[in-house]
Order: sequence, then C-alpha cells, then structure tokens
Amino acid sequence: MKLTILIHCPDQSGIISSVTHFVHEYKGNIIYLDQHVDKEAGVFFMRLESEFENEIDISFFKQSFEKNLAQNYKMKWSLHRDGEKPKMAIFVSKYNHCIYDLLSRYHSGELLVDIPFIVSNHQDLKYIADQFQIPYYHIPVTKQTKTLAEEKQLELLKEYNVDFIVLARYMQILSSKVIDVFPKRIINIHHSFLPAFAGAKPYHAAFERGVKIIGATSHYVTAELDAGPIIEQDVTAVSHSHSIKDFISKGRDLEKIVLSRAVQLHVARKTIVYNNKTVIFS
Amino acid sequence: MKLTILIHCPDQSGIISSVTHFVHEYKGNIIYLDQHVDKEAGVFFMRLESEFENEIDISFFKQSFEKNLAQNYKMKWSLHRDGEKPKMAIFVSKYNHCIYDLLSRYHSGELLVDIPFIVSNHQDLKYIADQFQIPYYHIPVTKQTKTLAEEKQLELLKEYNVDFIVLARYMQILSSKVIDVFPKRIINIHHSFLPAFAGAKPYHAAFERGVKIIGATSHYVTAELDAGPIIEQDVTAVSHSHSIKDFISKGRDLEKIVLSRAVQLHVARKTIVYNNKTVIFS
Amino acid sequence: MKLTILIHCPDQSGIISSVTHFVHEYKGNIIYLDQHVDKEAGVFFMRLESEFENEIDISFFKQSFEKNLAQNYKMKWSLHRDGEKPKMAIFVSKYNHCIYDLLSRYHSGELLVDIPFIVSNHQDLKYIADQFQIPYYHIPVTKQTKTLAEEKQLELLKEYNVDFIVLARYMQILSSKVIDVFPKRIINIHHSFLPAFAGAKPYHAAFERGVKIIGATSHYVTAELDAGPIIEQDVTAVSHSHSIKDFISKGRDLEKIVLSRAVQLHVARKTIVYNNKTVIFS
Amino acid sequence: MKLTILIHCPDQSGIISSVTHFVHEYKGNIIYLDQHVDKEAGVFFMRLESEFENEIDISFFKQSFEKNLAQNYKMKWSLHRDGEKPKMAIFVSKYNHCIYDLLSRYHSGELLVDIPFIVSNHQDLKYIADQFQIPYYHIPVTKQTKTLAEEKQLELLKEYNVDFIVLARYMQILSSKVIDVFPKRIINIHHSFLPAFAGAKPYHAAFERGVKIIGATSHYVTAELDAGPIIEQDVTAVSHSHSIKDFISKGRDLEKIVLSRAVQLHVARKTIVYNNKTVIFS
Repeated sequence: MKLTILIHCPDQSGIISSVTHFVHEYKGNIIYLDQHVDKEAGVFFMRLESEFENEIDISFFKQSFEKNLAQNYKMKWSLHRDGEKPKMAIFVSKYNHCIYDLLSRYHSGELLVDIPFIVSNHQDLKYIADQFQIPYYHIPVTKQTKTLAEEKQLELLKEYNVDFIVLARYMQILSSKVIDVFPKRIINIHHSFLPAFAGAKPYHAAFERGVKIIGATSHYVTAELDAGPIIEQDVTAVSHSHSIKDFISKGRDLEKIVLSRAVQLHVARKTIVYNNKTVIFS
Repeated sequence: MKLTILIHCPDQSGIISSVTHFVHEYKGNIIYLDQHVDKEAGVFFMRLESEFENEIDISFFKQSFEKNLAQNYKMKWSLHRDGEKPKMAIFVSKYNHCIYDLLSRYHSGELLVDIPFIVSNHQDLKYIADQFQIPYYHIPVTKQTKTLAEEKQLELLKEYNVDFIVLARYMQILSSKVIDVFPKRIINIHHSFLPAFAGAKPYHAAFERGVKIIGATSHYVTAELDAGPIIEQDVTAVSHSHSIKDFISKGRDLEKIVLSRAVQLHVARKTIVYNNKTVIFS
Repeated sequence: MKLTILIHCPDQSGIISSVTHFVHEYKGNIIYLDQHVDKEAGVFFMRLESEFENEIDISFFKQSFEKNLAQNYKMKWSLHRDGEKPKMAIFVSKYNHCIYDLLSRYHSGELLVDIPFIVSNHQDLKYIADQFQIPYYHIPVTKQTKTLAEEKQLELLKEYNVDFIVLARYMQILSSKVIDVFPKRIINIHHSFLPAFAGAKPYHAAFERGVKIIGATSHYVTAELDAGPIIEQDVTAVSHSHSIKDFISKGRDLEKIVLSRAVQLHVARKTIVYNNKTVIFS
Repeated sequence: MKLTILIHCPDQSGIISSVTHFVHEYKGNIIYLDQHVDKEAGVFFMRLESEFENEIDISFFKQSFEKNLAQNYKMKWSLHRDGEKPKMAIFVSKYNHCIYDLLSRYHSGELLVDIPFIVSNHQDLKYIADQFQIPYYHIPVTKQTKTLAEEKQLELLKEYNVDFIVLARYMQILSSKVIDVFPKRIINIHHSFLPAFAGAKPYHAAFERGVKIIGATSHYVTAELDAGPIIEQDVTAVSHSHSIKDFISKGRDLEKIVLSRAVQLHVARKTIVYNNKTVIFS
C-alpha cells in the first residue's frame, strides 16, 4: 500500500522531522521526499511517498495526521492512495493534435485517468471520440448561448463527477462560473512561451516580432486570461526562413507534448499551486 | 581572394540567375549561396560567398555590379572582402561576464575584430581592460550629464572610426543621438526571452510570474527600448527551487553566449535587417 | 504548377548559374534555393523549388535538363511535382506511440502520404489500424520463418507499389534482401543518440552508464545495424532520480517526434543521402 | 552558521526521520533536504543544509553524528561548513576557452575556490595565468618524462594542499599514480556526449558519422579513459552545413559551460559518486 502526501504551511523548524517521525510510527517506509521553502513568502512545501507493509486504516491515519500535525503546523494538505484514477474531462474545438496525443497515451495505459466524456463546441472531432469510444458532447457556443452552454457543461461535469478538466486547444474562454467550480483543476495549453504573446494569435504575433524561439505553455486556468500558474513550458528554435504556417506546424508538436506532460504531473500529484505559481516536484 | 555579397531587393524572377551569372563571368566560384523570400513583404534576400582565383579590381567590380544588376533590380547591397576586421567598441557598466567572454574570444583569435576601446560609466571593470591591454574610457552618466556623456562617446567613436558597438550589459539607455549614427550597428543583450519581460529587472519579473524557462535575447538597438530586430535568443530551464539569485546566475551563462553568437554573426556578415526583423544566414 | 529539383554532382564552377538560367528560360520563378558543398568530398548539393505560371511539359523538361545540364555536370538528380503523395508502409511491433503519432498526423492531413498498409509481427496493434481503417497484415517472424516472412513483406510492398518504409519501433532486424530493394528508403527510429548505445536495450545501457541526457535518432536503414545515415536527432535531460522506466517514458516522446520529423523531411524531398551521411535542406 | 551534510548508506526505513530529528535537537533549521534511493543498488542518498542560530561545537556535532547515526546506519558521510573555499588546481594544455571561463568566474567571485596554481605541459597559456596573477608551472610531458612530470605534479599538489583538480582541456592522460591520490576529485571535460566518441578527436568522428547533435561531457576521472562518473552534459544542434571547424567552434562554448557547471556542482557539495555514477542534487 502506497500513500502520497502533499503539504504546504508556514515555514518553521521541525516539520520534516515531525512528519517523517509520524509516518515512521505507522511503519511507513519513505520512498520519496522532496521539500521546498519559498523564503520570500515564508512557506514550506513537501511531497512524500510512503510504502506501508500492512494495510493501514486510512481514515484513522488522516484523523491522526490532522490532529497531531496539520493543526499544529497550520498545514494545507492532501493524501492520495496509489491507484486512484482521477476523472478527466477534455474540452476541444477543432484542432486534433492535443486530443490525439492525450487519447493515445490514455489508450495505451500511459495516462492513468478515466475519461468520462469529451466536450466540444464543434462537431469536427467527433470521429476521434468515436475512434476511442468515448462519449462526445457537442455543445455549441455563441455570444448568446454561452451562459446556457456553460450550464450544460457544468451539469455534465457534475453528473460524471469530474475531477479536473483539460482544455486541449479549446478555443473558448471559460467564465468564472466554470473556473470557480474547478479552482486549480483546469489545465490549459497556450501556444506561446508565456508571458510573451498572451491572448489570440500568438504565432502571428511571434512571426511579426521576428523571434528566434517559439514556445508553448501549460497552466492552470484562472480568471485572468493566460495568466494562471505555469505548470510546464517548452520551446523550439525558428528562423527567418519559417513562415507562420511553419510556426503553427512546429508549435503543434510543442503544444501536445507540453500539455501531456502537464497533465501527467497533475495526475501524479506532483503539483502544488501557491501565490499564482506552481511547485513542481520531480 | 574571397568576396561576400549581401543583397535585398523587391522579389522578382531571375535575380539568382543574374547574380550567379555575373559572378561567373568574373571567374568567381560560388562557395556559398543562400537566399530567402519574405513572401508577405515581397522582398528577396541573398548572401553569396565567392572565391576568385585571380585578384580582381574591386572598385570596377562594384561599379559594374551597381550598373548592371543593382539598379535594374533596385537592390540594396554590400560587398565585403575577406579578412577585413571591423572596429568594435564595447560599452559596459559593472557586470563582467559578457565582456570577459568577448575579450577571451578576441584574444584567442576566435573573434576577428579590432577593439579600439571600452567605454564605461563606472571604473569597476577597468582591471579587465588592463588585463587585455585595451584603452578604457570612464565616462560617468547621470541625468544631468547624459547629453555631455553621449557627446564624448560620439567623439571617441568617430575618432577611432568605429564600425559597430556592443552593449555588453551596459545598463544605460542610449538616446537617438547615438542610435541614429549607428543604425543596425549597435548590438545589445537583454536578459529575457523578448518580448517577455522587456525593460528593467527581467529576472525579478520572471521569478514573480513563475516561468519554467528563462532566456536571453541579443538584438540591434532601435529607438524603442528592447524592441529592435532580434539576432539571437536562447533559453534554459528553471524551476520553483531556483531563487532570483539562481536565475541571475543561470542567466549570466545565457547572456554571454547569446551576445557572443550575435556579435559573431554580425562580424561574419550573416545578418540583414529588414522591417524590424533579421534574416540570419547559416 | 510547382517543381522541386534535387541535385548532387562533382563540385565545379557555374552549376548554380546554369541551373537557375535553365529554370528561368522555362519561365520558372525560383521560390527556394539552397545549396551545399562538401569540400572534403568535392561534392555539390542543391535543392530548388520553382513555380511555373503555365503548365509545362514535364517529360520534355526532364529530357532537356538531362541533356543540357545533367550529363554535362555528371548530376544525379530527381524531379518532384507538387502534390504527389508517396506510398508509405509502416512496420510495427508492439509499441504504439510512434504509429499513433504518424497516423494522427496522416489523418489530419499534416502528413501528405498514402498508407496502403501496416505490417506487424504481432497482433497487438491491429486495433489501431482498425481505428484508422488501414489494412493490417500480421506476419509473424521467428528465426525459422524470417526468410518466408520477408518474402511476404516484399510481395506486399510490390503489390501496393510502396515508395518507402517506416519502421515505427519494429523490433526486428531487416535482412539485406529487403534493404536492397529500398535503398535510402527505409526510415528507422532508434531510441538513443547514436552512435551511443547502438543495438538492443539502449535505455538500460544509458541508465547503467549514468548519462545526464538521453536521445533518439532517426536514420535510413543500411546493412549495418544502427549505422545508417542520420536524418534527425533529439535529446532530453535526465538525472539520477529517473529510473529506467522513466527513461523509457521520456524516450517515447522523443522517439515519436523525431521519427515523425524525419518522415516529414523525407516526404518533403528535403533529404539527400551521400557517403552514409545526409544533407537536410531547411 | 550553516552546515551541509552529504550521506549515503544502505537503504532502510527511518533514516530521514532520525537525521532530521538529530539536526532538530541541535536547534538546526533545515533549509534544504533532498534524498534519493537507488532501488536496484539498495542505496540511500541524502543532502541536507541546515542553519543554526547559535554557533555549535562542530567536532562534538561530528562525534555525536558518527556515534548516534552513522555507525547505526553504516553511513558514509561528510560535513561541510559554509564559506570553506576548496583549493582547486587547473591543468591545461593549449586551448584557452575553458580556463578563461573558469578564471573569469573565479575573479568575479562567482566561483568560490582558491586557485593555488595552474599546471601546463606547454608555455602557451602562461599569459592568462599572468593576466589573473596565478602561479603557472610549466611541466613538459613526453613519453620519456611522463613519470617524472607526474611526480612533480604530485609534489605541487601536496605542497599547496590541493583539494581537487580540474582538467581544463589538458590533453594528457593522467596515470593511476595521480588518479589514485585524488579519487572522485579530478574533473575532466570531454568534447563529446559520452559514451559516444570517447578517446581522441571526437569532433572529427562526429563529423564523419554525420550526427545532427554534438555535445560535451564533464566527468570525474577514473582509470578507464573517458569512462568515469558523468557530472554534466549538454548538446547543441549541428547540420551538414557545418564543417569540422564549425563543430570545434560550437563545441568550445559547450565545453566551457559544461565544465564550469560541473565544477560549481562539485564546489557546492552537490555531487555524490556511487557505482561509477553520480547523484547530483539540485
């Protein structure tokens, strides 16, 4: 039996010692521990994986952890049991490279999630959902219908008990009505190395500026557009010889890899969000 | 005898054929030819290196090229003879990593320039100029003395017949009085992947934003701050575990390599500036 | 109408001038020209794209090119008309990441080929062929049946008039009987930065050696294992904290992207093989 | 007062808890803790930085650590006090880029070491030693004089109480007579991404093989040539258009940065060597 514990709390002396001692008393063998201190903010972060030879009483463990450690150190913490598969909804529009990448990883057992459904404002990618036999909900979005559309989306998300959402090049901006229900649980891919070229048409803007490097950024969605906590970024070299079409084509490879990496990090409980930034454990 | 020709002109059919034919008639053997067409702007760019078995009359070659080709195709062009060493002035402030990198390349014969002098608004780096036996002019700059300081700089630049200027982490903003005298001939290094984090304290801004990649950008200086044509960029990965101090330290390595690469490209006549962008030949 | 011409021949003066003049006479507008001279080998390489306003007589153009240029300069050359889709066969074994990446690009129109069939020595990936509705031939290979299996493969390749083969993590070594029929037309992906870790289990060998970088290499297949001309390579950082399983997982992303890039370069006629090396045009 | 502790020992339950508890009892505040378990080898590694408000008795701390923890867990461990500057000798031959990079970092206070002397088998770089006012010992090495030369080197190393040696493109192979005296304390830079192209002339071999990526590797020197534990590697892209001279020029930038990074990691006590591999703490 394996447990992963994520903690953050005000920095102070003795936390690691206390937590490892606690785990030790339950006969847990720590197989991974990484910690980080944000000195400016005075916050301590920790991720710990522990194996237990014998089955332990999780709810008792949790109660005891809360009472003996969490309250004392003012921790925000979460505990995850190995093998739990989170439910992940995918939102797409018309581009297929990100969803293909996610679904092929899912289908081959590399991405350990359940995918209850795919939502799109277009019919275009239904054939991919069909290829992978995943329910596909076509919910058109116009200025007029956006409120209604988001209500339908929220219903679906609730009905299927969705844990987190991946915007796999979903070209719509979510309103706070959706974002507030899934704080730090909506992952977007933006096709630039943020904060450069936030907003629409980043490849066009990059081409216009004459940059020698283009990038992609995966981040948690917040109310402010393209300004949420960054999970993962990558870049590739370009030159004057590349057209906007080339930028888009090269960018596709970045986008899908960066998004999939970010999703994997989220699923593996390796991310903590704090002060609009992320701590990403290795 | 080797000549390098740089050309740009309105795109039209037959240019390559005409130019190569012309060089061929002078018994030149083309050892390098690269061309680029900016289709949006309708502009043709070409770089050509040619070896001539016999010494040719350069001024006659130039006259003939101008009359038979350049006027016909409305070319802007330049011709460079192999072995000409451009005169490069270095402006610094207090950081030593970029100037050390440039001078060690210069000293070992890797960077084929003459360096008539180094200018600084501080005394701090005089010892490096002394190490390499290069004249060092200390010209302090304050709000009040800036105009006067730039006049002194221009005098020096004129006196030593300087071809181009390298701002090797010179922390002052040049006024258009200097820039206008050296259009497309002042190379700056900015410590971010532009256009992200233009202006002051880019590492602090990058840290604040929580990016996972930091970069450096070398560009030609124009009137608008950090907005000139980009010559070279590079990036390196960072994580939550890096402090601003770490960003600065990692950034130093980027800055010096990116600046030196840009200077090398300029010296090798591999850059053409057009529409606030660069064509960088390989 | 657009033509792409690939040329290599002994280096000598006047080739570019002659070829561009020739194209010009057919009222072709050169939209891309890149050339390379291997000085050690004394060989000239050129790739040229030209647009023709009017439809031209290709066979006449070819005849004339051969007679007036190719014979004179002892050129090996090929001419490709825009829009021709080469026929690409895919060989796989049990890993699905590379084939998924190729097929999703194919399906979205990013990869301009026809895929007449997929061959595998296992049944495992038939479901993917079915997802994309491509014929799947299961041809088991054992020591005893290898000769027979390759005969079947060659029959299929001939029947479908295949132009080139992609080994998308096909875990079998092809004999010269197949290789000789497709010289410079079989593309393999090897999961290391060759020449390091050629042969079996490169990730295990990389882990054992304690490298800080792992890579993937796509190359044309020759008689000698993993020693053919390299088309494309890429790498990613690893550390002591990564297990062999992590290497394999990170490697998957490299393999699929590197293989797909190599296939794209081949399809776009941007590769020339010479002296067991490649010239890759931009 | 700040202490850094490096530990490795057979993996078992309770180590982190015990060590952090021990430090806690001395009123140490742990500001950095990272650990790694090599599961195959069954070995536990840990690096810990701790700040102590009050001055503590180091020798008593060490004794107590040894008695209460190290013996119990069979630890190999070391303790380093902040601010100790190790003594680093530099061996060079004729290339100046690595030594310039090291000395400019040293001179600007970025590299916190003492450099008692530079040794070379040639006179060529004496001028750099003079620039930085560091003693330069010219010890020629021929087949006949190698034994004698190494004896002189060892005398110097002993006389100056040198802690570790950096081979900054020292083109000689050290015999085990020197290596045995500085186990895991000689850092070399090899100009290839090892294990590819070990031995002499790696850029020529890389060019011959037609690779698309070249690299540099810094490693601890062991008896077997270019086969010691790797500390740091980096690579850069090349193409058919680059000559061997270009490889060498691009390689220089890699070599100097990779070597300097490795030296910095060693000086910061972030490396542990085990089973011919390294654990590199972040």
